[in-house]
Amino acid sequence: MNCKKCGVKAVINMRQHKLGLCKEHFLDWIPQQTQRFIEKYSMFAKDERILVAVSGGKDSLSLWDVLDRLGYHADGLYINLGFDNGTDYSLKSQQCAQTFAETRKLSLQVVAIEALEGFSIPEASRLTLRGQGRPCSVCGLAKRHILNRIAREQDYGVLVTGHNLDDEAAVLFGNTINWATGYLMRQSPVLEARSGLARKVKPFFRFYERETAAYALLRGIDYIHDECPYATGATSLYYKELLNTMEAKQPGAKLSFFLSFLRAKESGFLGEGSSDDLRELRVCQSCGQPTTAADTCAYCRTWEQIRSRRPKAVEGRHT
Amino acid sequence: MNCKKCGVKAVINMRQHKLGLCKEHFLDWIPQQTQRFIEKYSMFAKDERILVAVSGGKDSLSLWDVLDRLGYHADGLYINLGFDNGTDYSLKSQQCAQTFAETRKLSLQVVAIEALEGFSIPEASRLTLRGQGRPCSVCGLAKRHILNRIAREQDYGVLVTGHNLDDEAAVLFGNTINWATGYLMRQSPVLEARSGLARKVKPFFRFYERETAAYALLRGIDYIHDECPYATGATSLYYKELLNTMEAKQPGAKLSFFLSFLRAKESGFLGEGSSDDLRELRVCQSCGQPTTAADTCAYCRTWEQIRSRRPKAVEGRHT
Repeated sequence: MNCKKCGVKAVINMRQHKLGLCKEHFLDWIPQQTQRFIEKYSMFAKDERILVAVSGGKDSLSLWDVLDRLGYHADGLYINLGFDNGTDYSLKSQQCAQTFAETRKLSLQVVAIEALEGFSIPEASRLTLRGQGRPCSVCGLAKRHILNRIAREQDYGVLVTGHNLDDEAAVLFGNTINWATGYLMRQSPVLEARSGLARKVKPFFRFYERETAAYALLRGIDYIHDECPYATGATSLYYKELLNTMEAKQPGAKLSFFLSFLRAKESGFLGEGSSDDLRELRVCQSCGQPTTAADTCAYCRTWEQIRSRRPKAVEGRHT
Repeated sequence: MNCKKCGVKAVINMRQHKLGLCKEHFLDWIPQQTQRFIEKYSMFAKDERILVAVSGGKDSLSLWDVLDRLGYHADGLYINLGFDNGTDYSLKSQQCAQTFAETRKLSLQVVAIEALEGFSIPEASRLTLRGQGRPCSVCGLAKRHILNRIAREQDYGVLVTGHNLDDEAAVLFGNTINWATGYLMRQSPVLEARSGLARKVKPFFRFYERETAAYALLRGIDYIHDECPYATGATSLYYKELLNTMEAKQPGAKLSFFLSFLRAKESGFLGEGSSDDLRELRVCQSCGQPTTAADTCAYCRTWEQIRSRRPKAVEGRHT
């Protein structure tokens, strides 16, 4: 397989596009495609202030790199979740994010959950019923809350995440298998701002995971290669596997699945029957962020529960 | 695992219902559940004339058995497709259907495609572009056409097929993966009659394939065990496999997938954006059956093409 642009040996073959590219042309192609998606889906403009959710992984660092190269004004926000027990996952990922930002002279804010709320995510998940002992639910809640709060408080025009097609197709697969109508209505690469919720977009939603990984590698970005230590056994990974077996049988299956969903949605096929999308948003009486709850938002309620269940030994520790 | 009703050793464990049953109680349970589905989905009444599409396989013969036991007036229709080259598939399946009908003194009509149109399905598929050499497309077209014509001409109130949950979930999976909005709108265990199309219902749509197979075996029904010789490599079998891996991981996944789809539909979630369902039906100028085409229906056009491409050697054969 040779590069379609210049004929030298290709470093990547994207079977769904019948496209092989050499290193140089692949490193051009990803930003060009990203710019095309940004325009096609009216994501954001050059004069907007963009907040990138940076995890230290291949997707978010590649995205930040591409946005910077394309001339967008994109600042980073890293959230330290405290996933360090035995793995140094948070320590290492924060280092990747900080080194990336320093090298390129980009602005990165760091928020540590433990400094903010008194507990790391693993500690918190042991003290709440939410997530039934797994930290994923508390973690997602915290990330959504903090990202939204900072995007709004600091007047960013848009909050940008590095979700790739594999991520999006896996979420869509789960929503579809359960015909979760509310989530299906909300799933989109562009979510408009409403009642206190920042605008959210996913410029990488049409790239396969292997493409963002190849981009990070070929661009020489130092990212954290480890999966989140709590990802093992996650349903989303199982859905990714299923989709990969379908992709292996029929190249392009994942992309076609997601794009045909977007087309069906645009055509007005998905009605509004039981959509959560229409649920009115109120203001949390504790933090002022939007919520569908009557008084206090899920974030505030969860942390209140966590603090109330703090063990005596932890309260009194001096180490 | 013991029978939930009487405590003796169970012959089947239906994990999605957390229900084990002995032979006797399973043979009662299937008709009871069928009656429940017939009522729940307003399928048909005791005084209606029912036409059962009988293939000679486990699903259609079990269904016919159950409808007869429940006191419904159900006649059978067997279509001989001419799948006999090397396999005797049609010969054997017709024998199963006829023996079943004779033993129970039930009325069975037999229609042979070759007698009706001059070619078996495998011969026809070699002479048409439809299906690209695979007989499945011509076969499906012929079966739908003949079943509908006979149901309408002979004034049956409803046409009943033995599709089980595995069949329906696989079709739904394919339609969903492609977000085939028109097909998603039409997929239902009950399709009401409209402009020349008979009413169609699937009373077994909530039974797993292994349950209809177990019913046929335990009831002593002699059915054809072979798969259709042309099924190998069919996409629907691949989807069934994928769904089975999901079912193995989470018992009830198939049922929940299909039922949540029906709920989403009932809630009005699926709109009418690009639905084929709304396409006006016209009358075929050749056979008088309903069609979305402007003049001649796909069935008539296909057989016209087949006859026009008949090889000279076949025309002149005397054997």
